[in-house]
Amino acid sequence: MFEAAELGRRVSHEDYKAQVPALREELLEVQRTLRADPRFPVIILFGGVDGAGKSESVNLLSEWMDPRWLITRAYGPASDEERERPEYWRFWRDLPPRGRIGFFLSAWYSNPIIDRVSRQTTRADFGERLQRIIEFERCLTDDGALILKFWMHLNKDAQRARLKKLEKDPLTRWRVRKEQWRNWRRYGRFVDAAEEMIKGTSLANAPWTIVEGEDDRYRTLTVATAIRDAIRRHLDASAASSRISKRSDAQSPALADGKPSRRAASSQPTILSRLDMSQRIKPAPYETRLEQLQGRLNTLHRKAQRHGTSAILVFEGSDAAGKGGAIRRITAALDARAYQVIPIAAPSDEERAQHYLWRFWRHLARGGRITIFDRSWYGRVLVERVEGFASADEWMRGYAEINQFESQLVADGIILVKYWLQVTKDEQLERFHARQNASYKRWKLTDEDWRNREKWDAYAQAVNDMVERTSTRQAPWTLVEANDKYFARLKVLETVCDRFEAHLAKHARGQ
Amino acid sequence: MFEAAELGRRVSHEDYKAQVPALREELLEVQRTLRADPRFPVIILFGGVDGAGKSESVNLLSEWMDPRWLITRAYGPASDEERERPEYWRFWRDLPPRGRIGFFLSAWYSNPIIDRVSRQTTRADFGERLQRIIEFERCLTDDGALILKFWMHLNKDAQRARLKKLEKDPLTRWRVRKEQWRNWRRYGRFVDAAEEMIKGTSLANAPWTIVEGEDDRYRTLTVATAIRDAIRRHLDASAASSRISKRSDAQSPALADGKPSRRAASSQPTILSRLDMSQRIKPAPYETRLEQLQGRLNTLHRKAQRHGTSAILVFEGSDAAGKGGAIRRITAALDARAYQVIPIAAPSDEERAQHYLWRFWRHLARGGRITIFDRSWYGRVLVERVEGFASADEWMRGYAEINQFESQLVADGIILVKYWLQVTKDEQLERFHARQNASYKRWKLTDEDWRNREKWDAYAQAVNDMVERTSTRQAPWTLVEANDKYFARLKVLETVCDRFEAHLAKHARGQ
Repeated sequence: MFEAAELGRRVSHEDYKAQVPALREELLEVQRTLRADPRFPVIILFGGVDGAGKSESVNLLSEWMDPRWLITRAYGPASDEERERPEYWRFWRDLPPRGRIGFFLSAWYSNPIIDRVSRQTTRADFGERLQRIIEFERCLTDDGALILKFWMHLNKDAQRARLKKLEKDPLTRWRVRKEQWRNWRRYGRFVDAAEEMIKGTSLANAPWTIVEGEDDRYRTLTVATAIRDAIRRHLDASAASSRISKRSDAQSPALADGKPSRRAASSQPTILSRLDMSQRIKPAPYETRLEQLQGRLNTLHRKAQRHGTSAILVFEGSDAAGKGGAIRRITAALDARAYQVIPIAAPSDEERAQHYLWRFWRHLARGGRITIFDRSWYGRVLVERVEGFASADEWMRGYAEINQFESQLVADGIILVKYWLQVTKDEQLERFHARQNASYKRWKLTDEDWRNREKWDAYAQAVNDMVERTSTRQAPWTLVEANDKYFARLKVLETVCDRFEAHLAKHARGQ
Repeated sequence: MFEAAELGRRVSHEDYKAQVPALREELLEVQRTLRADPRFPVIILFGGVDGAGKSESVNLLSEWMDPRWLITRAYGPASDEERERPEYWRFWRDLPPRGRIGFFLSAWYSNPIIDRVSRQTTRADFGERLQRIIEFERCLTDDGALILKFWMHLNKDAQRARLKKLEKDPLTRWRVRKEQWRNWRRYGRFVDAAEEMIKGTSLANAPWTIVEGEDDRYRTLTVATAIRDAIRRHLDASAASSRISKRSDAQSPALADGKPSRRAASSQPTILSRLDMSQRIKPAPYETRLEQLQGRLNTLHRKAQRHGTSAILVFEGSDAAGKGGAIRRITAALDARAYQVIPIAAPSDEERAQHYLWRFWRHLARGGRITIFDRSWYGRVLVERVEGFASADEWMRGYAEINQFESQLVADGIILVKYWLQVTKDEQLERFHARQNASYKRWKLTDEDWRNREKWDAYAQAVNDMVERTSTRQAPWTLVEANDKYFARLKVLETVCDRFEAHLAKHARGQ
């Protein structure tokens, strides 16, 4: 695989000097165009052999381009804030918003390859981690991001020569540590792992470019030219596709409805129609049981906290289904320092400039906390689908994106509980009227609630599809029959207690 | 001081039950009003003796109010991300935006009092830390924030009884650790320090309320009523003041110009008129010297990095003075992973919902990094003053706020370098024309640049006042004569090198 990067290609000093001024200007120009109409972020990743010019390339490009719109990230050992969250949290946090360029040094490729070279992971684990990378990059490029990846290559002798040279210069000596020489001695293993990694993760949406690293001038021109061309192409493509999507939206509004939702019109039975909505509980047994469950949750949560285990509770449901009341019955059982309720309304402008999952990643809490989302990332496949805020493409791939996101939470040891609170159409109407009639509740009812009600069937279908596609063994949905508030609240509490208990039992067995 | 909180006041169960429902509804109502028209944040701090009901109060209020718009923060030992930044970084990060309520448990009062009780700080240090608290709270309330502080009191016997009671209940036993009993044994010292602290920090803008903690019902009603009333009063006052300020803005636009700037009209000599703007350097010596200085900076920065020392460079200057070029000559000397350039343009909506300094606090980097602000918090006393975006009150108190902010950076061991790049009016015109004539530079020139130019004298006066008031020994301004780009860039580089060197020398002596 790397043979083609050992051909000894060089660029003469004269050729280099002749090409650089125009290239620099063109890079500034694409950067400015990108910035003037921020449609997508550019993510440029540099990997490769130590000493092959990863950081030199980043430094030089930073010098050539406008540093105000560049973000450069390299990753040392995780800080404790990072260790207490899923591995990708810090990469999500650092993603450039649309219109900006981010340079990433090794980043999400670093640990998989180091762990493989040092034999800390099996071949199967390695494969899984590559799969995670593919999903991550796919998720970003599907959203329009441009991802470029450069692998800087040197053969074993050239690497030794480079490391020796770096060691000689007092200005670069610091860069060569024991670690670099250890890597050099494992050159064979490293190149094998790299080859497997590059083969596995070089897909059309985020291809690797292998760059011969021996000649600085050749390397620089290759990388800079590739960046310039890729951004230009992506700018053109994105302009073209935005014209097409505008046209097709205008021509066939039905497209946004996509395949699964077409059934909605005919009011087919959904997963919700199978619920027994008559379940009730009387006030007196409710009070007793509520207190028991709250005590149980409190004890369980403190136990989880000692293990540093976090939980994420997701509340979705029909309007007026009683999400707020159910959330309050949970928080009442907890120390106010241990939880955070995150209400999800319209995104802020910083959030709009990022992938839609970014705003949820940013709210992930440190170990031992409970984060309660009042509405969530499921907005993508509910309101955004039904109202046409997301294109059919967008919400349809949302299911996979969400499953991948949640699998990262669960893999990190987070307890993930998802509730759908359902009321019948009649019960909802009654509650709307009650809100209208009680002055202190009137603010809770908006025009939007009435508009959503008109789309009852479309929502039912969206919920049905959502549960079908995202109720996984690791992150199942709990459907809550919420016509009776007491019944609903107890079911919510019971579920979270059971999930905590199951998790802690597994934890205890694991030790 | 605490005698009045040892009167044994109680509320009967019947009275409590009679009052609570209305009180809860009123609290929800003020919360809703606050949220509907978000004009200010509410910061509610709970301090006091262990076991006197700090967290019980927060838990109960969280249960009564809408948890979606509440933020609750308690602080354990600092994470490593927090330790590498000034002490107040984590409090700034957690501040509620306008329209929301934040509950803070001990927070910025915790360490000062603990350190004093354990005799880790002298009386003088304690005084300084109280001063820091006063400045912090003043800064927020001047911006409109409502700050309420409750001190929960118990006498020594009552505290022992409370701790014993907590220890008996398996649900609360975890809250009583060795630490709590150690605090109890030091009750006298604790109360003395608390008294001094409360006396020192109970000011009209952020008063303490001492609450008798023995009877839960009395304590709850006292706190909840005080919160309800204070928010109501603040809502009224803020509505009234926004009416007044709208009127006065309309009547006398000159007011925004304030006192110091009135001199601007007469084009008095300013600190800038004393600069020798003829200083130049030739290309050949420039190239040699540039390389030397960049090498020196690189070495110095790596040394600083080993000590975990961060630096912040602030670039302000006339339009077309060459800030971008000077910044690039610095970043070219650095590893791209070691610095971040933060361009300051219009704030995002998340930033607008906070105090204007919040957006700068959030960008403070971890240890060892260099953060370069291309424009900065000085916008408050420059563009916001001249353009009237900030009221005279706002920009005039800006000087003190900025000095306090910077003193926290410097106290944390950060190297702070501030540059003003000045060109003459003629030179600026020449550069504007050059930009107009070179196609690839035209985008750099905007209508705003021409408008700013018309206000040349007002800006000169604002710069003069800024330097006069914020060039402190700890954070001096460096005025850079920038008619000659070469001269300017070398001066910028030389200054940052000298500052690094001086800091490292002090550090070495300190060891």
